[in-house]
Amino acid sequence: MQTSQRIHNPSIAEKVVSAQVAAALVADGMVIATSGFTPAGYPKAVPLALAERAKKGEKIGITLIAGASVGPEIDQALVDAGVIKRRFPYQNSKALRDAINKGEIEFADIHLSHLPVWMKNGYFGEIDLAIVEATQIDEQGRIYPTTSVGISNIAVDLAKRVIVEVNSVQPLSLAGIHDIYGVAKAPDTRPIPLTDPSQRIGVPYISCPPEKIAAVVLTDIPDSTSPVAPIDEISEKIAGHLTEFLRNEVSAGRLPRNLRPLQSGVGSVANAVLGGLIRSDFEHLTVYSEVLQDSVLDLIDAGKVDFASATSLTLSPERLEDFYKNLDRYREKILLRPQEISNHPEVIRRLGLIAMNTAIEADVYGNVNSSHIGGTRLMNGIGGSGDFARNAGISVFLTESTAKEGLISSIVPAVTHVDHNEHSVQVLVTEQGVADLRGLGPLRRARTIIDHCAHPNFKSMLESYLYQACERSKYKHIPL
Amino acid sequence: MQTSQRIHNPSIAEKVVSAQVAAALVADGMVIATSGFTPAGYPKAVPLALAERAKKGEKIGITLIAGASVGPEIDQALVDAGVIKRRFPYQNSKALRDAINKGEIEFADIHLSHLPVWMKNGYFGEIDLAIVEATQIDEQGRIYPTTSVGISNIAVDLAKRVIVEVNSVQPLSLAGIHDIYGVAKAPDTRPIPLTDPSQRIGVPYISCPPEKIAAVVLTDIPDSTSPVAPIDEISEKIAGHLTEFLRNEVSAGRLPRNLRPLQSGVGSVANAVLGGLIRSDFEHLTVYSEVLQDSVLDLIDAGKVDFASATSLTLSPERLEDFYKNLDRYREKILLRPQEISNHPEVIRRLGLIAMNTAIEADVYGNVNSSHIGGTRLMNGIGGSGDFARNAGISVFLTESTAKEGLISSIVPAVTHVDHNEHSVQVLVTEQGVADLRGLGPLRRARTIIDHCAHPNFKSMLESYLYQACERSKYKHIPL
Repeated sequence: MQTSQRIHNPSIAEKVVSAQVAAALVADGMVIATSGFTPAGYPKAVPLALAERAKKGEKIGITLIAGASVGPEIDQALVDAGVIKRRFPYQNSKALRDAINKGEIEFADIHLSHLPVWMKNGYFGEIDLAIVEATQIDEQGRIYPTTSVGISNIAVDLAKRVIVEVNSVQPLSLAGIHDIYGVAKAPDTRPIPLTDPSQRIGVPYISCPPEKIAAVVLTDIPDSTSPVAPIDEISEKIAGHLTEFLRNEVSAGRLPRNLRPLQSGVGSVANAVLGGLIRSDFEHLTVYSEVLQDSVLDLIDAGKVDFASATSLTLSPERLEDFYKNLDRYREKILLRPQEISNHPEVIRRLGLIAMNTAIEADVYGNVNSSHIGGTRLMNGIGGSGDFARNAGISVFLTESTAKEGLISSIVPAVTHVDHNEHSVQVLVTEQGVADLRGLGPLRRARTIIDHCAHPNFKSMLESYLYQACERSKYKHIPL
Repeated sequence: MQTSQRIHNPSIAEKVVSAQVAAALVADGMVIATSGFTPAGYPKAVPLALAERAKKGEKIGITLIAGASVGPEIDQALVDAGVIKRRFPYQNSKALRDAINKGEIEFADIHLSHLPVWMKNGYFGEIDLAIVEATQIDEQGRIYPTTSVGISNIAVDLAKRVIVEVNSVQPLSLAGIHDIYGVAKAPDTRPIPLTDPSQRIGVPYISCPPEKIAAVVLTDIPDSTSPVAPIDEISEKIAGHLTEFLRNEVSAGRLPRNLRPLQSGVGSVANAVLGGLIRSDFEHLTVYSEVLQDSVLDLIDAGKVDFASATSLTLSPERLEDFYKNLDRYREKILLRPQEISNHPEVIRRLGLIAMNTAIEADVYGNVNSSHIGGTRLMNGIGGSGDFARNAGISVFLTESTAKEGLISSIVPAVTHVDHNEHSVQVLVTEQGVADLRGLGPLRRARTIIDHCAHPNFKSMLESYLYQACERSKYKHIPL
């Protein structure tokens, strides 16, 4: 790569160094904040070089904060090298999960909308270093993000020093797809003027005083994308029930014909369920979510979705290539925002979102566990699910009614870990059907969930549990 | 009372009827929404007349929605008469609690900020009737609220018909203390322009088409106020620890010298702890809460609090009398808003509140139970605690370290009902000390809570539990 094509500010161009030299800026004990949200738009070369330093025996332990999970150059290589001591606010790599479950890495599961607030309020201490990926740095020293925004703008703003990874496989034509808007700290916070998913409220770059940039590294390592699981029969059934539920809401006058902006959790089931809307008769849909997966591009291509806003593009390898090729077309229909905006309670509640998130298990009273198997084994974390579920106009949770190939029920008497309690779980959908819990007391919620969502193999067990709980419990509001 | 003094619209003045005649407008199966939030500003005469109808043998069952709990004319008389079949979103009367725990009344515990959204989205079905208390109705037919706002504006807006109770013991001089601002339904929702607790964004009355007013009832039944428990030693200790914590936050530069707007839960402990700030050296404080109790007026009188915003005034009998007498002075320092505004995530997060709510029990991992003893016996409900705890700049929970006169620990291995999980509980304070949980993983949270908050009598039990959990648990992130 020619430095001059991607770095237009001469004083910053002078700061180009190797990944090894940049990685030497990292010191033991540092708090480091990076770009990236899912394996998209995260720094790669410097973390790999840092891992090499540690593997050679140097003692380096850091606190690592990214927008959410990131790719294996951080969440695997730096874990294997023993560099990450503390990790916030989300993860989903096997290496990191195992280390956390072994007690080797301290992890706190944090609502993604809390993260910017906590960083700005100083709850993690000072941010020593930001490492962010960019397509280019312009004459004014402005940084142009790549396939995600996450906390990049906040990391750059708060960090004492900044390392920029300019990545030549991220096309320059990504410029313009971002909308960077910063929320001032209280008491100077003002209303966020966003009232529509397609609305631009900021600028397409991240501002940074040139003197703060400590190093620039040139790289061409691509985002570590993964293939998307094919849509299975279970997901199709869940999508079918969801579509019918939404159609009924429209008939009842509780939703307009083009629904409200859609939010969808991350993962194969969420992707498949959202993708199922392609077979619905809904049109002029919009998406306001944290991550755009393949299905959103499918929905855009099919003319179903008019506009999609998120903080990250989490596409399969083929879809990412296709997206890069057709950027001119997609740039009119997609915006990437800081997660402070994509996940902000203010905007979510204002837009009246239809939130669709996945559960590991749900109990008969409508509490959802989405993070810890058996209450103790961390899977991924809550991510933005709480931001969306709590603030949406309607909050739907999706899960297959059984797990472990049908051996256990995902509908249980009591969840072992509560991520979203009854208050945030208004509709539950499994491949068996839909439980509409709005306005129901605990006992009617339980009966509705068992009737509509439990797998036939486990229904009588759950009915028997509830019957016995009602019989033996002195208190009949939530019989236990 | 002269009708002409309080009802200035002649066509509405013609609708004055007895409470009995107005109560006859209630039919079996109706969904009724009332004014009131705590025993303040709720209708009294019509509910009492309705209870009389039912006691004479008429079959009347209704769904009753108020802003939160209300006074005994509704939450006791209508329960005793068997009229309330479903009750949302909060309660705290013995009669209602007992009926709910017996399974006689269906109750759903709902975040107070969700209630307006749910009502407007039609999740409770159509609102047949609104019954609201007023000081007066002006020439244009505008309704002036009394000692609370709650959902009054929304109930009047959505209900098919409206009954107004004009209460002559509520002084006309309350006019001007209210700031009524309605949030439009999505997709027409716009940013709420509130950026300071003292800011007026609306009008001092509730608009209502005169033809919608079905009846007006004149009454003089006062709010059913209760004395406030005297401040005890435990509350003083909690207040002392809290003050010290806040002082440290100021020293560390994480809070300004006048802190951020304060929110405080409802009840004697919360009142006492907030009142404890009177002995601090903080000045120019502001309050942005849902309820103002005696201590806020004390803080205003002491020159500590410059301004207080809420949706309800929940004062002791003496304090209410004093407030009425000095309304001209307090009107400059207090605003009552709809709960849609006082509890709105958008405003709470923007203002960066210091939220202080009470817990029944907290577990070592920082989950809080604030509603159900033993997971099954409903006490009151969550009220607005979730709105504030989730969205505040810093979320503090308060509890005495023991219950039942020291016989049981309020710090437990696992709470029996999760209202606020680890994500919303950032600081825990007992009379033993302060556990600052920000940025800590579960295990460090557990050690911090045991060290700083548990009562000495239970510390070794909790330490032993944690030790054993760590030993036996295969997964060390949240050892169970």
